[in-house]
Amino acid sequence: MQNTPADSPVLSCQIPIRVRYCEVDRQNAVHHSRYAVYFEMGRTELLRLNGYDYKTLEDQGLALVVVKLEVRYKAPAHYDDQLILTTRKGHTDRVRLEHLYELSRPADNRIISQAKTVLVHVDPTGRLQPLPHFLTT
Amino acid sequence: MQNTPADSPVLSCQIPIRVRYCEVDRQNAVHHSRYAVYFEMGRTELLRLNGYDYKTLEDQGLALVVVKLEVRYKAPAHYDDQLILTTRKGHTDRVRLEHLYELSRPADNRIISQAKTVLVHVDPTGRLQPLPHFLTT
Amino acid sequence: MQNTPADSPVLSCQIPIRVRYCEVDRQNAVHHSRYAVYFEMGRTELLRLNGYDYKTLEDQGLALVVVKLEVRYKAPAHYDDQLILTTRKGHTDRVRLEHLYELSRPADNRIISQAKTVLVHVDPTGRLQPLPHFLTT
Amino acid sequence: MQNTPADSPVLSCQIPIRVRYCEVDRQNAVHHSRYAVYFEMGRTELLRLNGYDYKTLEDQGLALVVVKLEVRYKAPAHYDDQLILTTRKGHTDRVRLEHLYELSRPADNRIISQAKTVLVHVDPTGRLQPLPHFLTT
Repeated sequence: MQNTPADSPVLSCQIPIRVRYCEVDRQNAVHHSRYAVYFEMGRTELLRLNGYDYKTLEDQGLALVVVKLEVRYKAPAHYDDQLILTTRKGHTDRVRLEHLYELSRPADNRIISQAKTVLVHVDPTGRLQPLPHFLTT
Repeated sequence: MQNTPADSPVLSCQIPIRVRYCEVDRQNAVHHSRYAVYFEMGRTELLRLNGYDYKTLEDQGLALVVVKLEVRYKAPAHYDDQLILTTRKGHTDRVRLEHLYELSRPADNRIISQAKTVLVHVDPTGRLQPLPHFLTT
Repeated sequence: MQNTPADSPVLSCQIPIRVRYCEVDRQNAVHHSRYAVYFEMGRTELLRLNGYDYKTLEDQGLALVVVKLEVRYKAPAHYDDQLILTTRKGHTDRVRLEHLYELSRPADNRIISQAKTVLVHVDPTGRLQPLPHFLTT
Repeated sequence: MQNTPADSPVLSCQIPIRVRYCEVDRQNAVHHSRYAVYFEMGRTELLRLNGYDYKTLEDQGLALVVVKLEVRYKAPAHYDDQLILTTRKGHTDRVRLEHLYELSRPADNRIISQAKTVLVHVDPTGRLQPLPHFLTT
């Protein structure tokens, strides 16, 4: 891990997302399967702001896997839209790491989607492990 | 719509899905965003078995949009796995069309994922409409 | 490798491909980036018909990588189209494995796309290796 | 179109691309089908720098379609890599709009990929049309 973790954890972050052409379907809306990709970008950046690089963690053997995804779709997003994704750390205990997401479009002040994911830590055989300490504080 | 609808509705169906190379991530598992694509294939085939072709319906102006997606990931699926997706019609009322999904791998009898989607019918301006009668019976 | 290789190599194969909803863009056509996924499915099945399973080969350390892709797009393909992909083994020497593809739509007898890929064999450090004998004959 | 076109055309541009988790395959490399998505982002931004917004053009009925794609893959790109895509306008005549691409990784000064696309202008029935004047100058 390249950076020194911040003294107090960063609990939320915002990233801009420009909708790509290939992410939009024939209804002219971002396909509902694509949102999970955005949310993953959000929690990766939140981790980075806290001094951790997910790629490095995974290369060192720390595999986090998504065990639950809940998405509510409020309004369609369109090609070339400039969206803002807000990612917040949710309720987290020894084994479950929760994130909450809100995707919005500043141009018309619309909430596009709200979502939640739960991640757990598994060993190479897929067995549940306690989360590393730095992820639970 | 090309086919004559069946006399009594088909309430569930199973389709085989071979995992594609590009659907698998660097953990050697189907990326969690890809499951929504499989589920969409399942409900499309269920509709087809009932005599309706989603492409034609959409071309005729019937836009169904996903407003809710819930996925539980039970076990990883891998490249080239032969999976079976079971899609069932769930609770449906005048405006909400629910489907339930179970993705499994016969080779080791594992359940890979269980999921639920809720679809609604919207007009071209995005306003909620009652579902057409043939979808609610 | 699970199967016994055929006595004489299979030089071409055809597979059906049903276009998925999420593969189609706002022009109501399969996005041009998606064709490479189809072509990969084609050469995987050609390998399987010759008794080899690409997943197993890769798990055993045989990494084939695409070094060249050329695609010509002749006509659009649409959501739910039933396409046929023909994959043929092309010119192959000690290090380069060429495949040729033709994607067509039987419903109106249109050729959708013609393409070529070149694959090479690399070791874990990315250095070019001779192709294994069974791939060049 | 929102912006005033520049007096003299912008002939090339560079955009940064951070590799997303879901874009990487089980060989830990960006899947070869994904590059076409990056290239599309590059030519969209080049168009924008010249004062044109592809979304608006398409909404006004100007459909550009890719008829040819050629990609050479020089070195693998990995998850979370920060890449630079350079897009240049290539040879263009009355009907064919060519773009050239180079994807590189500044961290180790490697060229990842070089590519070319050819786009044409088609009317709603798919018939070839002359390119609009502003695209050929």
